[in-house]
Amino acid sequence: MKVVLAQINPTVGALKSNRQKIIDSMTRAKKLGADLILFPELALCGYPPNDLLLMPSFIEALEAELETILEASSGLIAIVGTVRKNPTSSEKGLYNTAAIIDSGELVGFQDKTLLPDYDVFIERRYFEPAGPTHVWSLKGKRIAITICEDIWKLEGSVEGCNYPIDPVADLASERPELLLNLSASPFCLGRVSKRIEVCQTVAHEVSCPVLFCNQVGGNDSLIFDGSSLYVDGEGELIQVAKQFEEDFLFIDLEKKSPPTSLPAEGIEGVYEALLLGIRDYFFKLGFEKACLGISGGIDSAVVAALAVDALGSENVLGLALPSRFSSEEGKRDARELAQNLDIELREISIEKTYTTLIQELEPHFVGWAPDVTEENLQARIRGVILMAFSNKMGHLLLGTGNKSEMALGYTTLYGDLCGGLGVLSDVSKKRVYELAGWINRDAPLIPESIFSKPPSAELREGQKDRDSLPDYDVIDRVLCGYVEEHKSIEQIAREHHLTYDLVKSLVRKIHQSEYKRQQAPPGLRVTKKAFSVGRHFPIVQQWNLK
Amino acid sequence: MKVVLAQINPTVGALKSNRQKIIDSMTRAKKLGADLILFPELALCGYPPNDLLLMPSFIEALEAELETILEASSGLIAIVGTVRKNPTSSEKGLYNTAAIIDSGELVGFQDKTLLPDYDVFIERRYFEPAGPTHVWSLKGKRIAITICEDIWKLEGSVEGCNYPIDPVADLASERPELLLNLSASPFCLGRVSKRIEVCQTVAHEVSCPVLFCNQVGGNDSLIFDGSSLYVDGEGELIQVAKQFEEDFLFIDLEKKSPPTSLPAEGIEGVYEALLLGIRDYFFKLGFEKACLGISGGIDSAVVAALAVDALGSENVLGLALPSRFSSEEGKRDARELAQNLDIELREISIEKTYTTLIQELEPHFVGWAPDVTEENLQARIRGVILMAFSNKMGHLLLGTGNKSEMALGYTTLYGDLCGGLGVLSDVSKKRVYELAGWINRDAPLIPESIFSKPPSAELREGQKDRDSLPDYDVIDRVLCGYVEEHKSIEQIAREHHLTYDLVKSLVRKIHQSEYKRQQAPPGLRVTKKAFSVGRHFPIVQQWNLK
Repeated sequence: MKVVLAQINPTVGALKSNRQKIIDSMTRAKKLGADLILFPELALCGYPPNDLLLMPSFIEALEAELETILEASSGLIAIVGTVRKNPTSSEKGLYNTAAIIDSGELVGFQDKTLLPDYDVFIERRYFEPAGPTHVWSLKGKRIAITICEDIWKLEGSVEGCNYPIDPVADLASERPELLLNLSASPFCLGRVSKRIEVCQTVAHEVSCPVLFCNQVGGNDSLIFDGSSLYVDGEGELIQVAKQFEEDFLFIDLEKKSPPTSLPAEGIEGVYEALLLGIRDYFFKLGFEKACLGISGGIDSAVVAALAVDALGSENVLGLALPSRFSSEEGKRDARELAQNLDIELREISIEKTYTTLIQELEPHFVGWAPDVTEENLQARIRGVILMAFSNKMGHLLLGTGNKSEMALGYTTLYGDLCGGLGVLSDVSKKRVYELAGWINRDAPLIPESIFSKPPSAELREGQKDRDSLPDYDVIDRVLCGYVEEHKSIEQIAREHHLTYDLVKSLVRKIHQSEYKRQQAPPGLRVTKKAFSVGRHFPIVQQWNLK
Repeated sequence: MKVVLAQINPTVGALKSNRQKIIDSMTRAKKLGADLILFPELALCGYPPNDLLLMPSFIEALEAELETILEASSGLIAIVGTVRKNPTSSEKGLYNTAAIIDSGELVGFQDKTLLPDYDVFIERRYFEPAGPTHVWSLKGKRIAITICEDIWKLEGSVEGCNYPIDPVADLASERPELLLNLSASPFCLGRVSKRIEVCQTVAHEVSCPVLFCNQVGGNDSLIFDGSSLYVDGEGELIQVAKQFEEDFLFIDLEKKSPPTSLPAEGIEGVYEALLLGIRDYFFKLGFEKACLGISGGIDSAVVAALAVDALGSENVLGLALPSRFSSEEGKRDARELAQNLDIELREISIEKTYTTLIQELEPHFVGWAPDVTEENLQARIRGVILMAFSNKMGHLLLGTGNKSEMALGYTTLYGDLCGGLGVLSDVSKKRVYELAGWINRDAPLIPESIFSKPPSAELREGQKDRDSLPDYDVIDRVLCGYVEEHKSIEQIAREHHLTYDLVKSLVRKIHQSEYKRQQAPPGLRVTKKAFSVGRHFPIVQQWNLK
């Protein structure tokens, strides 16, 4: 049997163009002599469609597009991820499903059984879990069809979720000859090797090859990396589709292919994921150009380099917005960076505006000592100027705040938190340096002095981050323990040999700055727990606060 | 039997003070000779705790606080809403539960069966649904205990959700003598009468009295109005607790009380809900004072009046920030409003700052015509000044944008969208006028000319909202049809006798401005579908866009 894994990049809600992508892939697969073509989960509407699913007209439009696909199909089996109405009377009115099409006929639907409802997933909001997973007889072969999460219970690696049934274990006794999986599995650090492990375990359990077809592309905060897989019946990884781009993986189940190279993990994976996240956010929204503030620091340097790689240097505008507190070194670094990246850099001093505002406010602030107000004022004037360029020239403003700052609220709301997309929202300060190292792997695009100087917001004379914050290394460990692993203050203090008071003070900052994060730009997700999506904390709450 | 409905206002995560509130209520109930005291759903942690529930240390702290309550209890039965670990091996590790305490002993737990997972509710993220609801024998009485949603299936009024079981129908055959319900049912327009209807239907179904104890208080966007209820076995409404404040409703099931007055609905209910929402947001965060921009328009006038009623006129600072485009009439209206409300008003012209910024940007904008950039610039300078006052003086900035503007994106991100709390985010323009009418019911606090002038953002010469937008009445009808009722463009056009193109253009604006709403301040919810919470739409999507 010859199978194509059609690793496509659908746009959420773009039903007509998604449908056309599906039909084009089917035509191409047929020409290559494929027997079966497999698409990702919810390929027809793009994943995640979220509350679009609550509109009856959206569901009807999906049904109509599926009809069009049916009519266009001939000579091969297509398994298409979509949504269908739940014909029975149960809690939710929809199924997340795979439409099984054979030469113009709808053979049936295989609905999804395990519906993730944790972290970034909210599938129980819309979908009813399916009953048992069937084995389908297609082209004389006994084929099991599963959707994403359906194969993850086996591995036991689903957090905080102990599904009472396991579709894979149930399938094993039915002895399928092939197991297919339609997925929309977003990238995060460590996810790719985990996915391979899952497919291998499944192959062992059901003793047949596993074909895993993943969505690729960025949709808001989520970045789908593709990396579709073919694991044979012995659990050996035989083929892997491209990572971070569309692919059309042709698989001849009767032939052994040469072993393929593994997808990127680690910092290279994060870098490529962010590139795709930026590209698709711009492309799918219809933007070509980006602008950003270039401070001479490491965060904006990394975002600038990413933007250039994602959009081309001619589409990136850097804005240096110095004040009286900006160091000469920082200004020089900004210019050198722009030169290295070959981007336009405009310099606009915020001094006059700052002075004007201070004068206007002076009569009202008599008797009040200078404080963080004046620092925020500078950050906010920069925000105003950046947004003016964005509005005037149609550039989308990139946010440059990193995850460590976002965690502690070491950032100005409506100031450096301005932006259409938070590129580094899920990248800790430590990883920002690693990304910078990766960017410089062949040539020193980011000037050396940007690496070596101590981080500073430059909002007052001689200010350094370390004056008001502990080491970023300490911050990142507390952040990981509290935000990603949900550990207690005591536990984190013990495990990392930190004082209770230090950990508590950082945890308080995390809770106290929740209000800033809820007004932050959507951020690209690259770890298993991002701030921008999949995290629901109250602003008004007092746990670990007092 | 004598029962107390302890309609308390817990703070999310404030376990110690919530526990103390519970113990104090028990002591008071015992003194009054009550046999049983009923608390709201999740009273111990406050509703909604959201991802705090994912921290094992939080669950352990809840268990410890429940122990303390147990020890403090004697001489009466207490039913306390809390969380417990799921001792069985099923999908989710927690139950939303009612701890049944009798004189220092834990009689058992009644877990919640129907877990809402739509609109603002995300209970399936954390909780496992319970099995059958029991009838408990307490003080010689057969008592059924249900939690919130458990009694709503019967009424059939749960949107998009057709639960396969109905705890109330199941209980009917067990012939309980009393049905209790622990609730955290947030306010929205029409909700109070619906709740009464539900309790009456339940009373008929199970042929026994229904006691409904609701949480009161504001938690972020959600406003719980209390209005706890006692409906007798014939379905007659006998007693209602206070609305929008804590109450301690003493019920003697053997005595008929005089019929009580009904809670407020309509615009009075909205007004009171917003008051509570503001008060609790400030109080629970530890803020006393508010500031806001006073433009001379209807929105800021209504927010100012609400703030004064919620916080006291001495705690409200108005800031008039006129530009060259601000009308004399508007400035006069702002001053008159401030005088009527007895609040301090400071006037700071944005002219100098605007001129300075325009000059700084001029060399960069050569060849570009004036456009929305210059308008946004004014709104953003105002945002910077408002936030400077907020930072310097510790006032929380109130956002004044209304739901109609938020829907269409007729608002400036980081400009008038600045704020710690969006007071009118869920109030349509039409309702803003109704609120203003209600505010003026006794005396013309809001000057008449604010009502009569056409709405304008005053960001360019002679600008009126109606130049770029259709009538607010039309906007509100499309908004209701599309956002609240999920109708199609065709359906809305047909039902409201509007052209397809007009409706489509408004729907496009709704989708296109999603990115602004995702960075807007948390907004108080008063309708069944707010923008600020309970709505999950992608920013990058193309449905109804092209």
